[in-house]
Amino acid sequence: MCRWLAYSGTPVSLDDLLYRPEHSLIDQSLHSTMGAETTNGDGFGVGWYGSEDTPGIYRSIEPAWNDRNLHDLAPHVHSPLVFAHIRAAIGSAVQQTNCHPFRYGKWLFMHNGFIGDFHKVKRDLALAVDPSLFALIEGSADTEIFFYLALTFGLEDDPPAAVEAAVGLIEEVGLKHGVEHPIQMTVATTDGATIWAFRYSSVHDSRSLFYSTDVPTLQALHPELEILSVLSEESRLIVSEPLRDLPGAWNEVPESSYGIVQEGQDELRAFTPKAPVAAHA
Amino acid sequence: MCRWLAYSGTPVSLDDLLYRPEHSLIDQSLHSTMGAETTNGDGFGVGWYGSEDTPGIYRSIEPAWNDRNLHDLAPHVHSPLVFAHIRAAIGSAVQQTNCHPFRYGKWLFMHNGFIGDFHKVKRDLALAVDPSLFALIEGSADTEIFFYLALTFGLEDDPPAAVEAAVGLIEEVGLKHGVEHPIQMTVATTDGATIWAFRYSSVHDSRSLFYSTDVPTLQALHPELEILSVLSEESRLIVSEPLRDLPGAWNEVPESSYGIVQEGQDELRAFTPKAPVAAHA
Amino acid sequence: MCRWLAYSGTPVSLDDLLYRPEHSLIDQSLHSTMGAETTNGDGFGVGWYGSEDTPGIYRSIEPAWNDRNLHDLAPHVHSPLVFAHIRAAIGSAVQQTNCHPFRYGKWLFMHNGFIGDFHKVKRDLALAVDPSLFALIEGSADTEIFFYLALTFGLEDDPPAAVEAAVGLIEEVGLKHGVEHPIQMTVATTDGATIWAFRYSSVHDSRSLFYSTDVPTLQALHPELEILSVLSEESRLIVSEPLRDLPGAWNEVPESSYGIVQEGQDELRAFTPKAPVAAHA
Amino acid sequence: MCRWLAYSGTPVSLDDLLYRPEHSLIDQSLHSTMGAETTNGDGFGVGWYGSEDTPGIYRSIEPAWNDRNLHDLAPHVHSPLVFAHIRAAIGSAVQQTNCHPFRYGKWLFMHNGFIGDFHKVKRDLALAVDPSLFALIEGSADTEIFFYLALTFGLEDDPPAAVEAAVGLIEEVGLKHGVEHPIQMTVATTDGATIWAFRYSSVHDSRSLFYSTDVPTLQALHPELEILSVLSEESRLIVSEPLRDLPGAWNEVPESSYGIVQEGQDELRAFTPKAPVAAHA
Repeated sequence: MCRWLAYSGTPVSLDDLLYRPEHSLIDQSLHSTMGAETTNGDGFGVGWYGSEDTPGIYRSIEPAWNDRNLHDLAPHVHSPLVFAHIRAAIGSAVQQTNCHPFRYGKWLFMHNGFIGDFHKVKRDLALAVDPSLFALIEGSADTEIFFYLALTFGLEDDPPAAVEAAVGLIEEVGLKHGVEHPIQMTVATTDGATIWAFRYSSVHDSRSLFYSTDVPTLQALHPELEILSVLSEESRLIVSEPLRDLPGAWNEVPESSYGIVQEGQDELRAFTPKAPVAAHA
Repeated sequence: MCRWLAYSGTPVSLDDLLYRPEHSLIDQSLHSTMGAETTNGDGFGVGWYGSEDTPGIYRSIEPAWNDRNLHDLAPHVHSPLVFAHIRAAIGSAVQQTNCHPFRYGKWLFMHNGFIGDFHKVKRDLALAVDPSLFALIEGSADTEIFFYLALTFGLEDDPPAAVEAAVGLIEEVGLKHGVEHPIQMTVATTDGATIWAFRYSSVHDSRSLFYSTDVPTLQALHPELEILSVLSEESRLIVSEPLRDLPGAWNEVPESSYGIVQEGQDELRAFTPKAPVAAHA
Repeated sequence: MCRWLAYSGTPVSLDDLLYRPEHSLIDQSLHSTMGAETTNGDGFGVGWYGSEDTPGIYRSIEPAWNDRNLHDLAPHVHSPLVFAHIRAAIGSAVQQTNCHPFRYGKWLFMHNGFIGDFHKVKRDLALAVDPSLFALIEGSADTEIFFYLALTFGLEDDPPAAVEAAVGLIEEVGLKHGVEHPIQMTVATTDGATIWAFRYSSVHDSRSLFYSTDVPTLQALHPELEILSVLSEESRLIVSEPLRDLPGAWNEVPESSYGIVQEGQDELRAFTPKAPVAAHA
Repeated sequence: MCRWLAYSGTPVSLDDLLYRPEHSLIDQSLHSTMGAETTNGDGFGVGWYGSEDTPGIYRSIEPAWNDRNLHDLAPHVHSPLVFAHIRAAIGSAVQQTNCHPFRYGKWLFMHNGFIGDFHKVKRDLALAVDPSLFALIEGSADTEIFFYLALTFGLEDDPPAAVEAAVGLIEEVGLKHGVEHPIQMTVATTDGATIWAFRYSSVHDSRSLFYSTDVPTLQALHPELEILSVLSEESRLIVSEPLRDLPGAWNEVPESSYGIVQEGQDELRAFTPKAPVAAHA
């Protein structure tokens, strides 16, 4: 089981996000309290948006807690939108090309969970990837295929519909191959402006996902927390596991739903996988 | 451009094969004199046969000349059949799963050269891989697909026919996608008893490949070379580039041909790619 | 906290030692039940004796559970004497030159524990290393200095006396710098024939260390365990943590003592640090 | 032989500095035309100044030309002062802690060359390092010791005097141990505001070092080069090897001298090693 974090809001440093909080993502990589696996030492990745059109990305196969370059970079990288992921590999090779977040153009994508019995369905799923994208597959991770399926089904135009289509296909192909629970997932994707975060699993018992309470409410609840005073009202954090034990700060994303973190009011909607008709060929 | 070496004969240590010869493979990785690329620092691999059914394998993304583990292992590993490969990546990621030799059961496979315009043909070639093998693909190297195609076309039963079928398909698919020269290759494969070594390219101007003169002749030519006295008569070396400048020691494998190093008389035959009929679907 | 294992006896493969046992060292690296730290993902190393004068050695900064090369090598390496170590770094860099076992000539050395407040005492200890050995120091681990101190004080001639001298010096220097508990250790060293295993700490509450019951007794206790029938009577395992829950199989090395695994009767003796007089300069 | 580059001036991205120029540092790592060694594949490092007090640093043991993280970071990191170094190891281990630039507080330090017969002089030099700095030594590179010697002799107060003292000591200790040519160097150091770049060798035949012509002159010489129009008048580059063949652009730093790149007029002065008196103990 992996861990991930997505942040949008007032520009912060990676250091503020990844190392400073109590029970930070880096701490969690060593000692998870809520995870299916207790250690996440099989690589990690960070993606962020800065002055360039495409996001920066840093991925490594070392355990996150050991990586000196990450530690040294973290205070120097400031960004208003950050994805971070630590990996507990389930079967596939520990290699940089299997580390999240995955990137395509200005899009990032990361995943906690798995495609069930991936070896049984991998070929059918790979064939459903748009031929123009196929040659870009570099690793062997289920999530990389998942990402290219979402791109195939229109991630760049309508992310929720594209993820629903990709998951619908994964369930359909799984069913065909006798896989009991074809997918388990919390997923985040972004174009650098909006974040979409999904919680779903075929068994309807999905891995945990939390979003932070809006900043004004948090400020009222915890006036003693200085950091809250520098965050914009729209700053938001979405995490696999709460970063610190702060009463009133964390809200669970409901089963089979997704959230949209965007300019203006954020939203929470139902998530319903739908296999794309064209993919039956 | 990569370099490789295949050895069969009296058991020797990896140290004897890889480090001790003048102009050894390790030296070549730093300073090639015949190669298309002068530096081969993009990973390497060694495979060898010992007491187990499947060969041992050691692959790393560090330059071979830096790898302390290889240096420390080399004197401790003795084997009658060794494959070694150093890589100059052409485009694909530098990751362990892209390093040669590739292994399947008791088979090893390594390649110097490339599949032309691989991004154009990768999908069609991947689809031609037997579905039962597809999920085993772990990396993004053209050679990994090549290997699984050869396995698909019967490598375990008739290696020359299987490699001719795989190359035939690669040429046919390349042609279909407008690739001028679909393949450039010297390839070696083995089941642990016999070695097959191929030299071929679509442009009929293939990368160099040499086999060593038979040991009795070498002993007569160079009675001063002590190592020759401990080698069995059937010991044989096949290399991308001669290891040392020894008059009479190295013979070029002719264009469009392959050699078989086996118990008894070794053989040299013509190589003719033939696209498999079933693969046209 | 690290974990280690030392084996002497009937030649076995690294696979048999490291991967096959229930609660194996590799398992322990992910989920320790007795350790001070729960995860040991900061590199590992294996040393073994074969046909060469010096032992083979393989060390890596990847977590042991991820290392494919170790996994692939393990069935191919057979040895009558093996050291294996997995590391939980305490402060010092995660780099190959900090991984155990350390090697000098035919000697291996590994350590679970630490030199207290190492940054305070490092210089004085480094200065006590024999000048002819000083330039061989390659990393920044406390154990590397400890090893060179033991060599300085005669490890090759009288290992117990040399380790007692090194520990005596470490305590004396620690005292001088106000370090409350200068050393915590279980240590193993070998020349390829005999193993010496030490358990000691300044606070007299040392990390755990166990040795296996003699093989004939184990055979009588557990006639159902097939593997016992192929082990010689003198085969012996020393471990930080019992490998499996086998009644009667594991015996604790007492506080402040050391064991000698050797041809003939093994021995258990008291361990008493003694600072070398010459080192006071 | 290593290669390095130091830049000061208008903020640029690492991409502009490291990847875009013809005959860039990354290209040089594969194919040097002026170097003593033709391949520099033994790690690299980059240091830069940003919003923090201490410079950012990224060091890796992969060949620079393979490192995807560097490639992905480069467009995202902008800085007015950058050090970059690619390494051809001469003997010492390829590990991150041996990669340049070395950092202490706000200082960076990098070196092309070597301390002659380092194994003979390492101990004496290490003992001359200030005891308060000794425990910070993490690797086994001659340059790390050189840097701590310069810090010991006042780098933070008077860099030229400190480097002259360090080199004086290295020569004196070398002489004592019968080393013919104790040092070969081009060295750069900076506090984030000023750069000092030294060229010196005991044999008075030092490795090459060039500084760029002042920007106004370059603009007059090469009005067609667009990039020159965005650089401030004080922008300056110092390099082991000219980055591109631009008539009038590169000036050799004379033998036994050093340059100061600073606000206002840059300077060029004679370099004269002077062994510190206190170091004779």
